[in-house]
Amino acid sequence: MKDLLIMNGPNLNLLGKREPEVYGSANFEEILDQINADMGELLLPYRLHYFQSNHEGALLDQLHAVGFDYLGIVFNPGAYAHTSIALADAVRGISRPVVEVHLSNVHQREEYRRHSYLAEAAVGVISGLGWRGYALGLRYLIEQFGQKI
Amino acid sequence: MKDLLIMNGPNLNLLGKREPEVYGSANFEEILDQINADMGELLLPYRLHYFQSNHEGALLDQLHAVGFDYLGIVFNPGAYAHTSIALADAVRGISRPVVEVHLSNVHQREEYRRHSYLAEAAVGVISGLGWRGYALGLRYLIEQFGQKI
Amino acid sequence: MKDLLIMNGPNLNLLGKREPEVYGSANFEEILDQINADMGELLLPYRLHYFQSNHEGALLDQLHAVGFDYLGIVFNPGAYAHTSIALADAVRGISRPVVEVHLSNVHQREEYRRHSYLAEAAVGVISGLGWRGYALGLRYLIEQFGQKI
Amino acid sequence: MKDLLIMNGPNLNLLGKREPEVYGSANFEEILDQINADMGELLLPYRLHYFQSNHEGALLDQLHAVGFDYLGIVFNPGAYAHTSIALADAVRGISRPVVEVHLSNVHQREEYRRHSYLAEAAVGVISGLGWRGYALGLRYLIEQFGQKI
Amino acid sequence: MKDLLIMNGPNLNLLGKREPEVYGSANFEEILDQINADMGELLLPYRLHYFQSNHEGALLDQLHAVGFDYLGIVFNPGAYAHTSIALADAVRGISRPVVEVHLSNVHQREEYRRHSYLAEAAVGVISGLGWRGYALGLRYLIEQFGQKI
Amino acid sequence: MKDLLIMNGPNLNLLGKREPEVYGSANFEEILDQINADMGELLLPYRLHYFQSNHEGALLDQLHAVGFDYLGIVFNPGAYAHTSIALADAVRGISRPVVEVHLSNVHQREEYRRHSYLAEAAVGVISGLGWRGYALGLRYLIEQFGQKI
Amino acid sequence: MKDLLIMNGPNLNLLGKREPEVYGSANFEEILDQINADMGELLLPYRLHYFQSNHEGALLDQLHAVGFDYLGIVFNPGAYAHTSIALADAVRGISRPVVEVHLSNVHQREEYRRHSYLAEAAVGVISGLGWRGYALGLRYLIEQFGQKI
Amino acid sequence: MKDLLIMNGPNLNLLGKREPEVYGSANFEEILDQINADMGELLLPYRLHYFQSNHEGALLDQLHAVGFDYLGIVFNPGAYAHTSIALADAVRGISRPVVEVHLSNVHQREEYRRHSYLAEAAVGVISGLGWRGYALGLRYLIEQFGQKI
Amino acid sequence: MKDLLIMNGPNLNLLGKREPEVYGSANFEEILDQINADMGELLLPYRLHYFQSNHEGALLDQLHAVGFDYLGIVFNPGAYAHTSIALADAVRGISRPVVEVHLSNVHQREEYRRHSYLAEAAVGVISGLGWRGYALGLRYLIEQFGQKI
Amino acid sequence: MKDLLIMNGPNLNLLGKREPEVYGSANFEEILDQINADMGELLLPYRLHYFQSNHEGALLDQLHAVGFDYLGIVFNPGAYAHTSIALADAVRGISRPVVEVHLSNVHQREEYRRHSYLAEAAVGVISGLGWRGYALGLRYLIEQFGQKI
Amino acid sequence: MKDLLIMNGPNLNLLGKREPEVYGSANFEEILDQINADMGELLLPYRLHYFQSNHEGALLDQLHAVGFDYLGIVFNPGAYAHTSIALADAVRGISRPVVEVHLSNVHQREEYRRHSYLAEAAVGVISGLGWRGYALGLRYLIEQFGQKI
Amino acid sequence: MKDLLIMNGPNLNLLGKREPEVYGSANFEEILDQINADMGELLLPYRLHYFQSNHEGALLDQLHAVGFDYLGIVFNPGAYAHTSIALADAVRGISRPVVEVHLSNVHQREEYRRHSYLAEAAVGVISGLGWRGYALGLRYLIEQFGQKI
Repeated sequence: MKDLLIMNGPNLNLLGKREPEVYGSANFEEILDQINADMGELLLPYRLHYFQSNHEGALLDQLHAVGFDYLGIVFNPGAYAHTSIALADAVRGISRPVVEVHLSNVHQREEYRRHSYLAEAAVGVISGLGWRGYALGLRYLIEQFGQKI
Repeated sequence: MKDLLIMNGPNLNLLGKREPEVYGSANFEEILDQINADMGELLLPYRLHYFQSNHEGALLDQLHAVGFDYLGIVFNPGAYAHTSIALADAVRGISRPVVEVHLSNVHQREEYRRHSYLAEAAVGVISGLGWRGYALGLRYLIEQFGQKI
Repeated sequence: MKDLLIMNGPNLNLLGKREPEVYGSANFEEILDQINADMGELLLPYRLHYFQSNHEGALLDQLHAVGFDYLGIVFNPGAYAHTSIALADAVRGISRPVVEVHLSNVHQREEYRRHSYLAEAAVGVISGLGWRGYALGLRYLIEQFGQKI
Repeated sequence: MKDLLIMNGPNLNLLGKREPEVYGSANFEEILDQINADMGELLLPYRLHYFQSNHEGALLDQLHAVGFDYLGIVFNPGAYAHTSIALADAVRGISRPVVEVHLSNVHQREEYRRHSYLAEAAVGVISGLGWRGYALGLRYLIEQFGQKI
Repeated sequence: MKDLLIMNGPNLNLLGKREPEVYGSANFEEILDQINADMGELLLPYRLHYFQSNHEGALLDQLHAVGFDYLGIVFNPGAYAHTSIALADAVRGISRPVVEVHLSNVHQREEYRRHSYLAEAAVGVISGLGWRGYALGLRYLIEQFGQKI
Repeated sequence: MKDLLIMNGPNLNLLGKREPEVYGSANFEEILDQINADMGELLLPYRLHYFQSNHEGALLDQLHAVGFDYLGIVFNPGAYAHTSIALADAVRGISRPVVEVHLSNVHQREEYRRHSYLAEAAVGVISGLGWRGYALGLRYLIEQFGQKI
Repeated sequence: MKDLLIMNGPNLNLLGKREPEVYGSANFEEILDQINADMGELLLPYRLHYFQSNHEGALLDQLHAVGFDYLGIVFNPGAYAHTSIALADAVRGISRPVVEVHLSNVHQREEYRRHSYLAEAAVGVISGLGWRGYALGLRYLIEQFGQKI
Repeated sequence: MKDLLIMNGPNLNLLGKREPEVYGSANFEEILDQINADMGELLLPYRLHYFQSNHEGALLDQLHAVGFDYLGIVFNPGAYAHTSIALADAVRGISRPVVEVHLSNVHQREEYRRHSYLAEAAVGVISGLGWRGYALGLRYLIEQFGQKI
Repeated sequence: MKDLLIMNGPNLNLLGKREPEVYGSANFEEILDQINADMGELLLPYRLHYFQSNHEGALLDQLHAVGFDYLGIVFNPGAYAHTSIALADAVRGISRPVVEVHLSNVHQREEYRRHSYLAEAAVGVISGLGWRGYALGLRYLIEQFGQKI
Repeated sequence: MKDLLIMNGPNLNLLGKREPEVYGSANFEEILDQINADMGELLLPYRLHYFQSNHEGALLDQLHAVGFDYLGIVFNPGAYAHTSIALADAVRGISRPVVEVHLSNVHQREEYRRHSYLAEAAVGVISGLGWRGYALGLRYLIEQFGQKI
Repeated sequence: MKDLLIMNGPNLNLLGKREPEVYGSANFEEILDQINADMGELLLPYRLHYFQSNHEGALLDQLHAVGFDYLGIVFNPGAYAHTSIALADAVRGISRPVVEVHLSNVHQREEYRRHSYLAEAAVGVISGLGWRGYALGLRYLIEQFGQKI
Repeated sequence: MKDLLIMNGPNLNLLGKREPEVYGSANFEEILDQINADMGELLLPYRLHYFQSNHEGALLDQLHAVGFDYLGIVFNPGAYAHTSIALADAVRGISRPVVEVHLSNVHQREEYRRHSYLAEAAVGVISGLGWRGYALGLRYLIEQFGQKI
């Protein structure tokens, strides 16, 4: 298993444009470069894929497509964390581990952002650590489930 | 009206792979065969269609497409039962009857699976009777609304 | 195991008299005839028993009396579905399967009718399909647990 | 229709013994005498019946037995007001009017005594007026539904 | 103490005009005549006063003005039953008994009409018995607290 | 019917002084001028009245006074939207349509400002569109219920 | 006062058959023997009675019958603990002390088993200590209220 | 900025077919004609676009596509108002104003239709004013943010 | 600014008559004398005004009248603390500080007395310290906002 | 295992001084004597230790210190029952059984005293039986887990 | 009784460092000086003690130590107001009065800061008046319970 | 700033002994070794400190002691996450960043473990990633706030 997926949910394509005081001013392409640089050699043996969609159904399809073969998935479900039982069911239904990541600290925002259906199904959750959360999630997947070289 | 639809919502394409201790190990193609065998002659005068999607919007489109012409619909909305008011509105908006079916007994699982928006709009609900629930739903639609031969 | 029980809870003896716009105008004796006619040969190898009481305790006694020997029970608990933990405990305590049936779709009525203690203990639930719900419940019990001839 | 029923639910047979600071020290036989004296000529053309039971099922049976023929029923359901949907369904199911009466003012006691399922089905409710509540309930039934002489 | 007060809260001046299917088509002047006729000799030794206001403050002032001298008050607080703690405090603060009356059965309407702050302070409550509720309330006050002639 | 009423509830007399960052710095006299200018010829055939009070009772009296004769009412109930069932009952009790208007978007403020009793009785609600909300409400009443010249 | 009562509510007649992993495999006759053996001489001066019923009304009748004469009652109300206000009222209405006992630790099961109406009226509660709970309850009644020999 | 968008969410393509007693019998093409006629010259300098989808994701994509360039958006989110945090986040994420519109008065229907996530992010909300709500929303956007000619 | 206001809400004119075991037996005139005596020289440079009304609207009017000119206001809103958002809005809308005072400790009474809308807008709250609470509130206003001589 | 611990939480050192009408007038030293006397020979083979602290952390330390070696612990957590998840976690973390004891019947006091985190982790709970509850808890531990001599 | 205690709970040792925009920039030593200066001669006959701890248990110990001998205690429990039932029990358990003080107005902060267990047991509460709240609390204790010289 | 702190709350000293199926079988000394090995050179320029206590007050004292001087703190508050507002206030009160870590995924356990007061104050949260969560937290603090060599 040489593949890893970073998957982003709704509105994360607006990154760099949307509420930069909350989410920062870098778009996700720049963030991917930062993640690659930050992880260094650890990522070398792997192919890192990226998928974003605003469509709950497309995120479900993607989880089904890679969820039995990839090493693992770092998934920022955005607002769907709080409203989608279907995505949580998909994570339960696949066999590979998913780490839930949020850029902002969801516990410091609206009450309804504190509850995540997805978190009941994910291996674990990282929130509030900005783009580094993705890198830390990948690092966890590789160290815990992969084979270091 | 010679057409009947079985419609499945999110993650039910994983049937046979996802949590088999809850949902059984047969995939839905095998289940369709079982339904056909079980119903015998009753189904003969009808065309039985099957539609599955992980996309809430696609399920809405499908309800709109057949909901004024088919004899009825047996619909397993999966997790969307609990989160989608839009699907319930669609069932209210069409003119043909919908029977809601769940494979597992939703009353024995997480609290949030006990409430179904769809059930407020459906003719009735069958849950916990496994694949037979589909066959019983079809039987109801045919006996109640169809013309037996 | 050649015995099946249909059991009705409180006020179902008023069937045909009580709120006919909700529950229909047939009394349960007529409904039993319809069920027998509808099920045809499937029911031939079995003795179908019927029991109704307005007394929660009498329903408990009856569940205890037949719940280790009959093939199964189709139980319409009426309002006790929503208020009786004792009946749910009885269903848990016996060894034979119980299918919960409601004539009307409980999800379209008062909020307090949407929750059923019994449903946590029953094999499954059928609601909103009128008298046919009883027949479908019997059919399920026979096909799933009986020996067809 | 020449018959009226006063019906008392659980623990009201303890009247005069149970918590006299809340319910008074007269037993219900004495109260019936007071009611008769208080109502005077108004009651003359009627037969006043009395029924008490601690059994929810027996109260249901009694409502069914007289609920299509008597002029009306004054019913103190005691604690069953708060827990029995079945009794409320029975009141809905019969054709004669029921006035709910409570000796004490239920709004001044435990929170759970403030909600009555029965009140949703009864014609009206009188609470807190002691034994006079029964007399006032009978008076209402006679003046509103009976034929004064 | 020869004085009795019937006091009506907000919108009851619209009686006969407002939602007649709920409240009837008689205005309160006609209702007062009915009450007088209905009570007959019992009311003879008393002066019956009537006060209506849409102003919570005016109702408070009136309770203070008569609440230490009149035999008692029959008070239909209308919607203020559900929202005014101040009126309940006034009833607690005066020394004469208040019977709360509602024309319609508040238990059969919106959820928020089922709770009455006033009922915690009143002697008792009569609801759902139409204009007769006022007469029954007066009768209670006279029989319980007055001196019959 | 040639009369229209704009009615403002509590604290709206402070407009221009109270929390100008939320409600703007114009007082309501200036706002009335803006509304007249904005609506132009549409308003010509009508007399536009204005009433403001901090007294819930006075608002009730005013609704009763004009609510059977005016073309319609644009009503900003201020905080009484959230606490007054009596005002909602008055709107139900009169025969002419009421449009509820709020200057600010109540959905972006305290939780308790999101619920309006009045909105259950009004024809519709406009919130968050500032002083223009009044003009839009008048326009709706005239176009929907009036006779354009 | 030489009499003590152990009273069991619904489904406890199934003891030994029902969910033995929760309630143990001994039936109550065997448990009574264990209690007698365990208590030794302490019980000698007393007659120990046993009563079980699935009928809420029968339990009420029994409480009324012995509740003014026996030394005390050890009462396992089963599921009625959570749903019966009437039984709690009966315990309040009698004059002798009642100790509530549950075989299993109700705090480790479904949320709705954590609340007991009866516990508000009983002297005290023992839960989770199996059959020994009955013996400890009897011991308490004898030592606290009886006369040791 | 010469472009305006009317955007409709799920089931609004059924307009004219779905529950006409709630939503009227005109389909949205007819409604667009009415809006054009009603707004007259005010709309002349603008291009009015229309978009409908049953797919939450497609609505998100559309908001992203026009949300930085159009003058504003009048958005009837249908049932997604109550369930989609993602759409509210999109409205927060774009730079142009959105007015939320509902045909029916959401405050007079099911409890769950009274809460709108979208309303927390929109400029304002118009509900219950039928098709005129769209016209009023456009008028607001043009008068407040556009340049009249 | 040489003026200070003590303002009392509903039922506080009954002080000395209403529930003296909760509120004490002195009427407010006597209390004003005690306050004057207690504060001594500190109060000398100020004029102390007193206003009481049972009318929410009159209290609003008074806040508006003095709320931009007086040094500050000590306000005991009585029951309106718990039900009036309008009064809290008025306190937000004026420019001078308000200290909320309650004679009794509201935290030791009914649950609904523990929440105060007014407290969200007031500078601070003093409760449970009897008539001294007024004096302490005045002292705070003078020491914090006034100029001592 | 020859050691048993009685452990008392916060404020129980005040026993005999604090609210004697609720907790009795004996201090815990006297209670220990009563327990020793009451248990007689049963306690002879054991060393009975006593520990009290107002410090949640000290109670945690003590549970850790003895929780793998003592026969069992009778623990009255006082108010920490209702607020400390940490103590419940400690009881889960150790290997020896804990019986929770409360002097008063917690079900008859404030609502928040009816829920105990500790009870989810303890073997069982005894409440309302005064000092005898400790003796009964010790008796249970010895009879169930110890070796009688 | 010549002793008075000011007691501060968790984090109040950070005063002057922690969130100065909420709590001010003076540390508590400086505040004590202000209090002494402000109270002047009134404090002369008394010894004023000060105690601060972050340990709930230490605060309990201190309440026990002085709570039967000091004139009274001014206690700022900080966050323990909202989470500690044990401290409230201690205040109930001692015999001397406690005034609860909060520097900030707890009603204007997070929802969970609006509820105080301690306030149910304290004589009264002062919140939002900054350091002056301590002085006012001491003044109350001396004037109400002490002997002025 | 060359110092980093790992701080553990209640019961984490039992690691390796307590519920190993949830928390693993290594004690924290072994975990510290793993963390050191895992982080490699990144940690070299820093001194890593470790502190554990079961005392909420001791954890508060420690946060105060290092919270203005250390680079940052990785804090596993255990059960205090869910019950201690004081610890969250301390994190708000200090100036250095705190990352909250939980060994298990708190979202998959009891409902009450899903809410963390601390998370409102921490920079971010990592849960469910076992001992690696500590290492990832340290890595974040160093990369985000430290100076890499």
